[in-house]
Amino acid sequence: MSIYLDNAATTGVIPEVRDAMLPFLNDDFGNPSSKHYDLGRRARRAVMEARQQVAKLLGAEIPADEDRVRNVYFTACDTESNNWVIQNAPLVAKGKKHIVTSAIEHPAVLTTCAFMEKHYGFKVTVVPVDSTGLVDPAAVEKALTPETARVSVMVANNEVGTLQPVAEIAAIAHRGGALMHTDAVQAAGKIPLDVKALGVDFLSISGHKFHAPKGVGALYVAPGIDLPPLIHGGGQENNHRAGTYNVAGIVGMGKAAEVAMAEMATVAPRQFALVERLWQGLSAASPKIHRNGHPEKRIPNILNVRYDGAEGEAVLLRLDMFGIQVSSGSACATGDIKASHVLLALGIPQEDAHGSIRFSLGRDTTAVDIEKVIEVVPQQVRVIRDMSVTWKG
Amino acid sequence: MSIYLDNAATTGVIPEVRDAMLPFLNDDFGNPSSKHYDLGRRARRAVMEARQQVAKLLGAEIPADEDRVRNVYFTACDTESNNWVIQNAPLVAKGKKHIVTSAIEHPAVLTTCAFMEKHYGFKVTVVPVDSTGLVDPAAVEKALTPETARVSVMVANNEVGTLQPVAEIAAIAHRGGALMHTDAVQAAGKIPLDVKALGVDFLSISGHKFHAPKGVGALYVAPGIDLPPLIHGGGQENNHRAGTYNVAGIVGMGKAAEVAMAEMATVAPRQFALVERLWQGLSAASPKIHRNGHPEKRIPNILNVRYDGAEGEAVLLRLDMFGIQVSSGSACATGDIKASHVLLALGIPQEDAHGSIRFSLGRDTTAVDIEKVIEVVPQQVRVIRDMSVTWKG
Repeated sequence: MSIYLDNAATTGVIPEVRDAMLPFLNDDFGNPSSKHYDLGRRARRAVMEARQQVAKLLGAEIPADEDRVRNVYFTACDTESNNWVIQNAPLVAKGKKHIVTSAIEHPAVLTTCAFMEKHYGFKVTVVPVDSTGLVDPAAVEKALTPETARVSVMVANNEVGTLQPVAEIAAIAHRGGALMHTDAVQAAGKIPLDVKALGVDFLSISGHKFHAPKGVGALYVAPGIDLPPLIHGGGQENNHRAGTYNVAGIVGMGKAAEVAMAEMATVAPRQFALVERLWQGLSAASPKIHRNGHPEKRIPNILNVRYDGAEGEAVLLRLDMFGIQVSSGSACATGDIKASHVLLALGIPQEDAHGSIRFSLGRDTTAVDIEKVIEVVPQQVRVIRDMSVTWKG
Repeated sequence: MSIYLDNAATTGVIPEVRDAMLPFLNDDFGNPSSKHYDLGRRARRAVMEARQQVAKLLGAEIPADEDRVRNVYFTACDTESNNWVIQNAPLVAKGKKHIVTSAIEHPAVLTTCAFMEKHYGFKVTVVPVDSTGLVDPAAVEKALTPETARVSVMVANNEVGTLQPVAEIAAIAHRGGALMHTDAVQAAGKIPLDVKALGVDFLSISGHKFHAPKGVGALYVAPGIDLPPLIHGGGQENNHRAGTYNVAGIVGMGKAAEVAMAEMATVAPRQFALVERLWQGLSAASPKIHRNGHPEKRIPNILNVRYDGAEGEAVLLRLDMFGIQVSSGSACATGDIKASHVLLALGIPQEDAHGSIRFSLGRDTTAVDIEKVIEVVPQQVRVIRDMSVTWKG
């Protein structure tokens, strides 16, 4: 038995996506920039089609006959997209170097901001969140200065799933003369996204969070904004992102976007309900269990809990023995067991902030899976608590 | 009939490589950073194994039991690797911002240098080449100043194939207090590479030039050098290159490196001889044909020629009709028909510098393919010359 509930870390490539990719790992190996023969032109058309599919996922429709890249640029991953937007903020904003971001952003945003602060004179203001992980738009407003180039607040948090009021924050950013970036990596493919309704200028995603392969991401850039490249070289992506196209990966991401769009109306409510059932089952079975993050304002597929007297790490290792694969939060850490910066930002004490368990559902997670988890997890928590010298249940 | 002779633009994924990748596009979809369950640990081991394979290709052996990343970092492509080394040069060199490079580097180097010059105060000295495309080490020596952070000269040119005296230039760079970078994207997998014999501090490659998939590259960094990341975020690659691992791509690159190593001793001489036969056949069949690049100091698989009175572009389009896929040089241009900066640097007049044809052989190019090319190309050149108003053959 194996129940994979770490889909927020990465997802498996689904068969439709794999089938779409395989020709480009076989005979259709052309370079999209090779225009003198059909093998190259076919690859080019495949990339164009994928761009349309990803644009639709983001509500960023582009003309179907558009050969020039507009608005949706392919990158290697969400992390590259975030770096691109943040590192080059002053080049878009006439030298302004102040960034406003939130305490629960992914390291791809926070670490980039810190690096640019250390080496390139950026000023970074990190606004706090409340106990459910929500950013207060008023705090963003207060943080804005005439020097603010960029506001960067994610759509959905990767550890606790809380959904941010991005549209409201974007409006505030714009009123303050700043551009708005959002990291939508956990939201894309899970909930409807519409860059126009959100009012964002930049939006980052990765394919592997919604059943495309790892190694491909995208950045949406609003019309009229000329973001200089982060990766310079050849003329790919209309001179905005150099490097030979990852054709198979891009095609996979396009197909995954199409599938996610087609299935979202059925998958998202099912996941949302399964997460509620999971919380109800777990909380009924154990005392002293806490839910991290906002219970309603959340993406459908994440539940983050912690147990008093049961270290998350210890629970995870036991769950692995029973074929349940989950994580304690971000998979992006170095392997050191550190308190989660997200949980700390929610006001959870240091000693509890490395004890959480994140369950993140995939497209194919079933009710049977969830019932099994509800059976196994409380048992294992009990085993660990029984061994604990500090637990006084 | 189809004869693909544009392997310097990109290569097809060979079956061994595809077979190695497929498990990671199927059930083995774990995130290498997920350490709490076997699915993640298997992916991690696969990345480690690929790192060993790539290290061997570069002569950068690392301990087999080494879990920490050392010396070989995975990136999205050679272009990213080049950007990383160049953009962060001052951070390694205590603020020194002078770069010495050559006139025939790939745009991934030259465009990056130009951008950093425009926006970040870099000084760039571009040394010329002779008529065969060779950089004169003495010119590099002359260009060095106490402010030189980095010398960047490629191993083999992507358009004409000329091999540079990298070891000699590296020694000069070091004597001058600069670090040495080389773009080995066209050389890797084609000729033996040994970072220690070359004496380079940084070496960039892409997998897709030697029959791995597109979307994965690597950067070698010599022991003792701490190059800060270009892409910041999670702790991947020992905190040096953030972003979820492109596991399937990395595994493919490792396998392709292994195959290239195993076959190089037979493939390289065969390609070298086939290129000589191609040149001999083509030059015997048409008057006023010229060979671009160095006839002996070259990678085995590239022949670049130009014909007086026959535009390269026109020849390419006719060859496509006959199933021969070649290019006029770099596939990385924007689609504008521009004179090649490489050919201009070789002293070829502007009016002739967009008229070249690059034949680049792959692992599986046969003598039969080459004989067919020798039959077809001169015929088509004749057709084009016959239509030309300027050709006075």
